[in-house]
Amino acid sequence: MCFIYPAAATVAKTLLLWHPNVIYSLSKTMLMKKVIFVLILVIAGNLAIGQQNTGFKQGQVISPLVSGNAVTFKLYAPHAQKVLIIGDWEAGGGKGTLTRDTSGVWSCTISDLPSDIYYYRFIVDEVPMLDPTNVFERRDVGTLFSVFIIGGGKGDFYSVNDVPHGNVIRTWYHSQTYKTDRRVTIYTPPGYETGKAKYPVLYLLHGSGGDEEAWVGTGSVDRIMDNLIAQGKAVPMIVVMPNGNPSKQAAPGETKDNFNYRPAMSNAFPGYKDGSYETSFKEIVDFTDSHYATKAEKPQRAIAGLSMGGFHTLFIIADHPETFAYAGLFSPGINFSTLNMNYPAYQHLDDKLLQLKKDGIKLYWIGIGSADGLLPSVNAYRAKLDGLHFPYQYVESTRGHLWTNWRSYLLQFAPLLFRN
Amino acid sequence: MCFIYPAAATVAKTLLLWHPNVIYSLSKTMLMKKVIFVLILVIAGNLAIGQQNTGFKQGQVISPLVSGNAVTFKLYAPHAQKVLIIGDWEAGGGKGTLTRDTSGVWSCTISDLPSDIYYYRFIVDEVPMLDPTNVFERRDVGTLFSVFIIGGGKGDFYSVNDVPHGNVIRTWYHSQTYKTDRRVTIYTPPGYETGKAKYPVLYLLHGSGGDEEAWVGTGSVDRIMDNLIAQGKAVPMIVVMPNGNPSKQAAPGETKDNFNYRPAMSNAFPGYKDGSYETSFKEIVDFTDSHYATKAEKPQRAIAGLSMGGFHTLFIIADHPETFAYAGLFSPGINFSTLNMNYPAYQHLDDKLLQLKKDGIKLYWIGIGSADGLLPSVNAYRAKLDGLHFPYQYVESTRGHLWTNWRSYLLQFAPLLFRN
Repeated sequence: MCFIYPAAATVAKTLLLWHPNVIYSLSKTMLMKKVIFVLILVIAGNLAIGQQNTGFKQGQVISPLVSGNAVTFKLYAPHAQKVLIIGDWEAGGGKGTLTRDTSGVWSCTISDLPSDIYYYRFIVDEVPMLDPTNVFERRDVGTLFSVFIIGGGKGDFYSVNDVPHGNVIRTWYHSQTYKTDRRVTIYTPPGYETGKAKYPVLYLLHGSGGDEEAWVGTGSVDRIMDNLIAQGKAVPMIVVMPNGNPSKQAAPGETKDNFNYRPAMSNAFPGYKDGSYETSFKEIVDFTDSHYATKAEKPQRAIAGLSMGGFHTLFIIADHPETFAYAGLFSPGINFSTLNMNYPAYQHLDDKLLQLKKDGIKLYWIGIGSADGLLPSVNAYRAKLDGLHFPYQYVESTRGHLWTNWRSYLLQFAPLLFRN
Repeated sequence: MCFIYPAAATVAKTLLLWHPNVIYSLSKTMLMKKVIFVLILVIAGNLAIGQQNTGFKQGQVISPLVSGNAVTFKLYAPHAQKVLIIGDWEAGGGKGTLTRDTSGVWSCTISDLPSDIYYYRFIVDEVPMLDPTNVFERRDVGTLFSVFIIGGGKGDFYSVNDVPHGNVIRTWYHSQTYKTDRRVTIYTPPGYETGKAKYPVLYLLHGSGGDEEAWVGTGSVDRIMDNLIAQGKAVPMIVVMPNGNPSKQAAPGETKDNFNYRPAMSNAFPGYKDGSYETSFKEIVDFTDSHYATKAEKPQRAIAGLSMGGFHTLFIIADHPETFAYAGLFSPGINFSTLNMNYPAYQHLDDKLLQLKKDGIKLYWIGIGSADGLLPSVNAYRAKLDGLHFPYQYVESTRGHLWTNWRSYLLQFAPLLFRN
């Protein structure tokens, strides 16, 4: 059992230590001004719970501190022996060590970062942790990361700017295939709520281990669409982000498993690679068309996805040539050697691609990083497409199987949609 | 600058260490099965970034582990000297120490916790941190907490259950008063999207330092309403959660300040205590009535709020007796000694209360904890109400100025609304 501090057991002290809202209470009940002042400093420093000295010190540390294309990380860890940082910037693998000053503050600076949104964690004597002075985090599959933005380029598209904002809706549709309600995240563009127009729809799929929160959270979709639309670079569109793991109703924490659902990478869930998701995808399209102000016709529908979602995209559009006019395969996971091609969804792919071409697909877009382990299988698939004289656009970016590429691919792909 | 490990700089190793999605890539590119197996273990353990040994060890630790009304916390921190835990359970102030076993795993167990959702953080040698093996967190003002649920009572209302789910919408309204768009979070009940009915509306306000995310995040509103409605304990209603800090358009990270907006407790923001928010609140009601399927009449509107939101509620309903039929003051911050009563919103309160009574308010509900520092000012306000023969319901709970009370008050308040 946990040893409890008897000396800390008074209600008043408990409140002081634990809850930020209590400062409101305190200011009303006239404690000593000095005490309030110190507490405000503590609380302003993002440390409502903590030993008082710790809190005061942590409150003086600002991390991360972005200046142009450089970022400085700081951590007050006076007893630590070694503080590492791991992030998703490229140079040196995004891994480094912080150095300690005499006051117990560890720090390091990384310069010349390209504009983007970045993810990082500290490792303090083998214990991984978020930056305690940075309240902004994103979850990717089963890991939380602290985040920061380097502006002046792509990062500006991943930022909230002073432009009209769309809505983000978490809703549920009923799946006849899986006999359950399933959650879906939907972006509607600025002006949608006036009810005056109908909109085209982009169906945007996550990767393995992801869920219906992935594109809005780590993918910054709402920011990207708001900014592209505001700049006239993309037409206003609805973006529908379903959950591609048929064994779960919804994202971690949003199912009846609650906090017992420990998200992890997996391709082994039921319903993956049996084609059921691909063949049943029309359920999601029908839900969208019946509940939202869509232009419910093929030329006004696009589908795209990253990694496993690129695999899904490939077969969903191949199986529904009458439904979608645009496809985006972002670092798609399309090595067919592990696939049971006897499932109807996966059969006769060449014939389906030829039908897709004949029916007049407007855009078939493939993007992958030069350092992505999936590049060989994408090259093999491109050879197949070339053999079929199937038209597609191909973008080979730098780097690997990373969100920096997938956000960037969306920035390139969305402007190409629904132009006529 | 950060020292970079040259040895780790190969792209492949970078990918292996940093990104969970890469396991998908790896399984395609046929690395050694043994390597893949170890990596799967690492990744399944929620540690995609980390030293490999660390990751493997952290992956074996499961924390928190809930069993009935007990919870066990564990942390692998082999080099730590002292590991504390602070949370919002009552016994002993919710603060304790973990003890170390020979393998470097620290742990402690807390028993006999009442059913609820709980918040906690570790402090490892003065460094505050989330539980690295628990991916579920909530933000309260400027602090992130790890969370867990003890079921079998109130906690079941704060859980996702196998019941119909409402929608949660993040949208924006235009404020003429503040000359800007402002964000608002809206819950619509199950069945809303069929478009067949109109619904009553509860306006639900956050406390100082909070924002339009507070009630849905820390407050578990979507779970509470789904469960109350499914059990027939509350009528289906829309819940509108605006942002009560007029100096900000939206929650931290959702404004053009992006990650430079460091949320903190403050009553000092412009527009607080000048009455502008209270007198302009009808803007939010008008937006709701014009964009959602509401029953747009006084008997179908309620307003409630916690702490500062209780203060707002008191004056909003006093200034709009024609608009709301129900009020809920949850631990309200209503010490008037710091208030400039010359602002129109705050003048003539006694007269306004008498008008409210005369116009036929259906419910005036006040709840506060016996250990809340605001209790004296609430008692003073109750004496005023008694002097005016103003009818109200009063609930004095245990504990203090805490979310456990505010969720509980909503559980008690929502079932009383819109019954006739």
